Amino acid sequence: MQTPRQTTRFEHPLNEKVRIYLRLEYLLLQMNHTSESEDPWQYQLFFRALFDVLDILDQIQVKSELAKDLDKLQSQLKLWLDVDGVDQSAVLSLLDQMASIHHNLITAPRLGQILREDRFLAGIKQRFSLPGGSCCFDLPSLHHWLHLSQDGKQADMAYWFDQLKPMAQAIHLWLRVTRESGHFKPQIARNGFFQHDAENASLLRLQICPSYGVYPMISGHRSRFAIRFMPFDEAQNTTNHPVNEKIEFTLAIC
Amino acid sequence: MQTPRQTTRFEHPLNEKVRIYLRLEYLLLQMNHTSESEDPWQYQLFFRALFDVLDILDQIQVKSELAKDLDKLQSQLKLWLDVDGVDQSAVLSLLDQMASIHHNLITAPRLGQILREDRFLAGIKQRFSLPGGSCCFDLPSLHHWLHLSQDGKQADMAYWFDQLKPMAQAIHLWLRVTRESGHFKPQIARNGFFQHDAENASLLRLQICPSYGVYPMISGHRSRFAIRFMPFDEAQNTTNHPVNEKIEFTLAIC
Repeated sequence: MQTPRQTTRFEHPLNEKVRIYLRLEYLLLQMNHTSESEDPWQYQLFFRALFDVLDILDQIQVKSELAKDLDKLQSQLKLWLDVDGVDQSAVLSLLDQMASIHHNLITAPRLGQILREDRFLAGIKQRFSLPGGSCCFDLPSLHHWLHLSQDGKQADMAYWFDQLKPMAQAIHLWLRVTRESGHFKPQIARNGFFQHDAENASLLRLQICPSYGVYPMISGHRSRFAIRFMPFDEAQNTTNHPVNEKIEFTLAIC
Repeated sequence: MQTPRQTTRFEHPLNEKVRIYLRLEYLLLQMNHTSESEDPWQYQLFFRALFDVLDILDQIQVKSELAKDLDKLQSQLKLWLDVDGVDQSAVLSLLDQMASIHHNLITAPRLGQILREDRFLAGIKQRFSLPGGSCCFDLPSLHHWLHLSQDGKQADMAYWFDQLKPMAQAIHLWLRVTRESGHFKPQIARNGFFQHDAENASLLRLQICPSYGVYPMISGHRSRFAIRFMPFDEAQNTTNHPVNEKIEFTLAIC
C-alpha cells in the first residue's frame, strides 16, 4: 500500500453564516484545548478566545440562526428514512442526537449572558485588547487568579466553557453533517487557477500537498467560486517563485 | 529551617516609561517562550505578542529612552567604583556588559523595521485583531506556514525574535539592575490600606501570601503611593468577603 502524501487542508465558507460558524468552532476549539493545558501562558489564549466569542455573539443572533439550520438539517435527514439501502438506525440515531442538541440550544439562556455578567471576566476584558495590556499591574486580579491552584483554575475555565456548551454542540453537529455531505474529488488547477459552480453549497474543503509551496486564495459565493494558488516564499518573500503550470489537489463541495 | 510560605509577586511601575519597559519585557518573554513550544496553538501567542510589540514601538521612541536610561545607570554605577568595600571586579564586569548592550542598541537599525517590512507578517497583522480573525480562510498564508516543518517555523520565529534582541537585552539589563536596587522589607496594611513615600523610585515590588484572598490595587507616582488590598472572590464574586484587619506583606521600593 502506498503511503498517502501529507496534505494541508483548507476550508472556505461560501456564505456569511458559515463564516461565523467556522470562526466560533475555531475559537471554541482554542478554549477547549487551552483550558486543559498547564502551560503558564495558555490562559492568555483561553481568555482571548472567550472574549472573541462574546464579541461575535454581541454582533450576530447566532442562537436563532443555528436553531433554524438544525431544523432544516432535520427535515433533510428525514427524507433519507424513505430511501432504500439507507441505514435507518444510523439516521434515526443522528436525528435523536439532533433533537436533543436543538432542545438544549433553544432552552438555554441568552448565549454568553452569564459570562458577560461575571465581574472578574468583565474587568479583564476591558484591558485585554490593549497591546501588552494583561501585565500584572494592569490586571492584578488576573495575576492573583493565575496564582490559584491548577485545579481551581481549570474548574473556573470548565465552568466558563460550559456556559457556551449548547452553542458548541450545535455548531459541531451542524458542521460535522455539512462536512460529511461532500466528498473529496481530484482536481487540477492550470497556471494556478481553478473555477467551478457551487449551487447551494455552504463550504469548500481543499487538500493540497505543501510541497507545491502555494496556498489557495478563494473567492466566490453560493453559485460560483474561483481559486487562485499563490506562491508562498519562505525566504522572507523577497522574490516570488513561479507557480507550477499544473497543480493537483482534491476538493469537496459541501 | 522553616519552609517559606508561597507568595505571589506583584510589580507596579511608578512612571510611564517603566510601564512601557515592563509591558515590553512581558511581551518579549511571551515571544521567547512560545517560539520554543511545539503546542499547535502557541503561534497565536507568538504573533499576538510580536504585533503588540510593534504597536508599542510605533507609539513611543523606546530606543532613545532606553539608551538614555542605560547612560544614567552607567554614571551611577561608576560612582560605586570609589566606594570602599564594593566588589570592584563585579561592578567593572557589569559596566562592560552595559557598554556592549548600549552599543548594540544605538547601532541597531530602527527597532522592528525589518518586521514591519516583512510582507508575510504585514499580511497577518491586519486580520489578527479581528475576533477569530486567524481562521484558515482569513489567513491562508498563515495556514500554509503552520504546516511547514517545526524546524522551519522555529527558524522563522528565531529570526523575527532576533530583530528585537538589541532592545530585549537593554530592557532586561535595565530592569534587572533596577530590581536589584531595592530590598524586600516586611510591611503591614491596616484595614486593607497602606501608603508610603517613594522619592525618585521607578518600581514597586510586592510579595503577598495568596491565602489572604486579596490582590493589591496600587496608585501613585514618583513621590508617594497608596496600596488598597481588594478581596478576590473565587465563587464568581457574588458577595465580597471582608478583608483581614491586618495584612502582612513584603515590599521593595526600587
